[in-house]
Amino acid sequence: MMEQIPFPVLRRVAICGGTHGNEMTGVFLVPELERRKKEKGDAGRSVAFTTVLSNPRAAKECRRYMDKDLNRCFTKDTLSCPITEDTPYEIQRAQELNSLLGPKGSDAAVDIICDLHNTTANMGLTIISYSWSNWIGLHVFKHLQATITSTPVRLVLINVPPCEAYSLESVAKYGISLEAGPQPQGIVRADVFNFMKQAVDAILEWTEIFNSGKVIKGGEVEAYLIQKSMDFPRDATTGQPTAAIHPQLQDQDFCLLQRGDPMFLTFSGETLNYEEEQPLHPLFINEAAYYEKGIAFHLALKKTMSIPSIRADTDGEKN
Amino acid sequence: MMEQIPFPVLRRVAICGGTHGNEMTGVFLVPELERRKKEKGDAGRSVAFTTVLSNPRAAKECRRYMDKDLNRCFTKDTLSCPITEDTPYEIQRAQELNSLLGPKGSDAAVDIICDLHNTTANMGLTIISYSWSNWIGLHVFKHLQATITSTPVRLVLINVPPCEAYSLESVAKYGISLEAGPQPQGIVRADVFNFMKQAVDAILEWTEIFNSGKVIKGGEVEAYLIQKSMDFPRDATTGQPTAAIHPQLQDQDFCLLQRGDPMFLTFSGETLNYEEEQPLHPLFINEAAYYEKGIAFHLALKKTMSIPSIRADTDGEKN
Repeated sequence: MMEQIPFPVLRRVAICGGTHGNEMTGVFLVPELERRKKEKGDAGRSVAFTTVLSNPRAAKECRRYMDKDLNRCFTKDTLSCPITEDTPYEIQRAQELNSLLGPKGSDAAVDIICDLHNTTANMGLTIISYSWSNWIGLHVFKHLQATITSTPVRLVLINVPPCEAYSLESVAKYGISLEAGPQPQGIVRADVFNFMKQAVDAILEWTEIFNSGKVIKGGEVEAYLIQKSMDFPRDATTGQPTAAIHPQLQDQDFCLLQRGDPMFLTFSGETLNYEEEQPLHPLFINEAAYYEKGIAFHLALKKTMSIPSIRADTDGEKN
Repeated sequence: MMEQIPFPVLRRVAICGGTHGNEMTGVFLVPELERRKKEKGDAGRSVAFTTVLSNPRAAKECRRYMDKDLNRCFTKDTLSCPITEDTPYEIQRAQELNSLLGPKGSDAAVDIICDLHNTTANMGLTIISYSWSNWIGLHVFKHLQATITSTPVRLVLINVPPCEAYSLESVAKYGISLEAGPQPQGIVRADVFNFMKQAVDAILEWTEIFNSGKVIKGGEVEAYLIQKSMDFPRDATTGQPTAAIHPQLQDQDFCLLQRGDPMFLTFSGETLNYEEEQPLHPLFINEAAYYEKGIAFHLALKKTMSIPSIRADTDGEKN
């Protein structure tokens, strides 16, 4: 019999949207979840779920952030820095969210944070996890992949130790970031809204199955491990991009980019090819928020990973 | 023989980009046109062309505007209001642009302004003209429709008298606004960049043909005349949208919307249909910049219009 790793029963899940204020699926899904909860209640659930509009000021102005990217503010240092009048809004808000949902790294932290994001890249539904041994997160991914059929569901792993993790979901015991796209900033598309709503419902459903004590079978999952980033070619004087993503690469997220494949098309019409020896998978191709970060796309290795069977320790719960 | 309306030879054309600072095709095409002009010169052209980055501050911050939508600042009143320290940046910039390219309504104004825009809507290449008798503009449209094959080319007419026209291109004798999409704000797509570049080249080419004195044949063109706008359903308390564009309408710009056709899908999953008697053509469906203006899409009538043959008055020129 396969090993079954026991985990404590899940008690609290937070669904967060608007961590980036111009990613509209979360901005509109959070009030809809609140409306539904008010209408139907959450009786019969073993899990309490909280909804949070993470960056209400930026959402109101339809901007990614006011002073600073909120989703880079959840490091230990930033969460413990003293607040003064001059502290950027997002640092103050990160500390508020840490009080509400954390404190990060403590027993009091919520079990799961699902943070809802959008991307202008053709990423379908992508689950991002910052740890290779976040078994709860990886099982949630497996459940979403089995449940959602209207768009591809994929897993991206960023191997950052918890102490260095900087994003909102790192405040929870098990953090999951959901990226849905393609969707321009500042608008909501019904197709993207619908598969994100389906994903949130599936996650809440999964927590109930898990809490019932049933063994959740492990198995193999495919994961994309980010290796490095590629910037646009830029003008040496102005620093401005001198090329766009090549039409043959645009919208082809998760394809295999091989030596000699077209990568950029300069504004004067010249094709620039991928010249690296190692074939890799491009992700977040032409994501609007990455222009200021100097990223045209990320490059990832695809790897098959084994995840163990897990079950809720309902005995522990009864004691 | 058909009537041939004589027009003065065209001497000055301005290509403007970045009037909205997060519409990146123009922001990147203007420097590319400048680079090419520096490299190849414009010897042999009968038309001098100027390139302008209309809102450099907003372009630098990748925002639509800083204080005020620049493309609403070109009315007589705004162009003549006194400038103080507190005058919004875009009003100051509008007056600068009016000095550079106008003054609006005077003989000194440039002949043609082509103002390059992007939309998140699936509008292909759309030429917008604010006057039904802008024969130069309508002939440019006809030439573009015959030249560009990689995307549909359509004409939208907004019947506003010149004195009320508020947009940048109204500063020229013949103003043409080019909308290219779908493209998210803040990114450049090579496919959209390429057809916009092709359009600008075709316009410059057409001005040379026109200036040669050759008769430019008239004929019939299809135009979409904007009748009204439709807002999203909104929450009475918060004012926030409670529905997205229905998936069957999303990306279907220029289709014919008939009574009973799905129009919106509420966030709780209910379909709302188009209930008007008159079938109309929806345009700018789900344009990001229109959320703050309370517009989900415009509705237009399609009409076939006759445009006369024209020719440059080269005799007048020689005298």
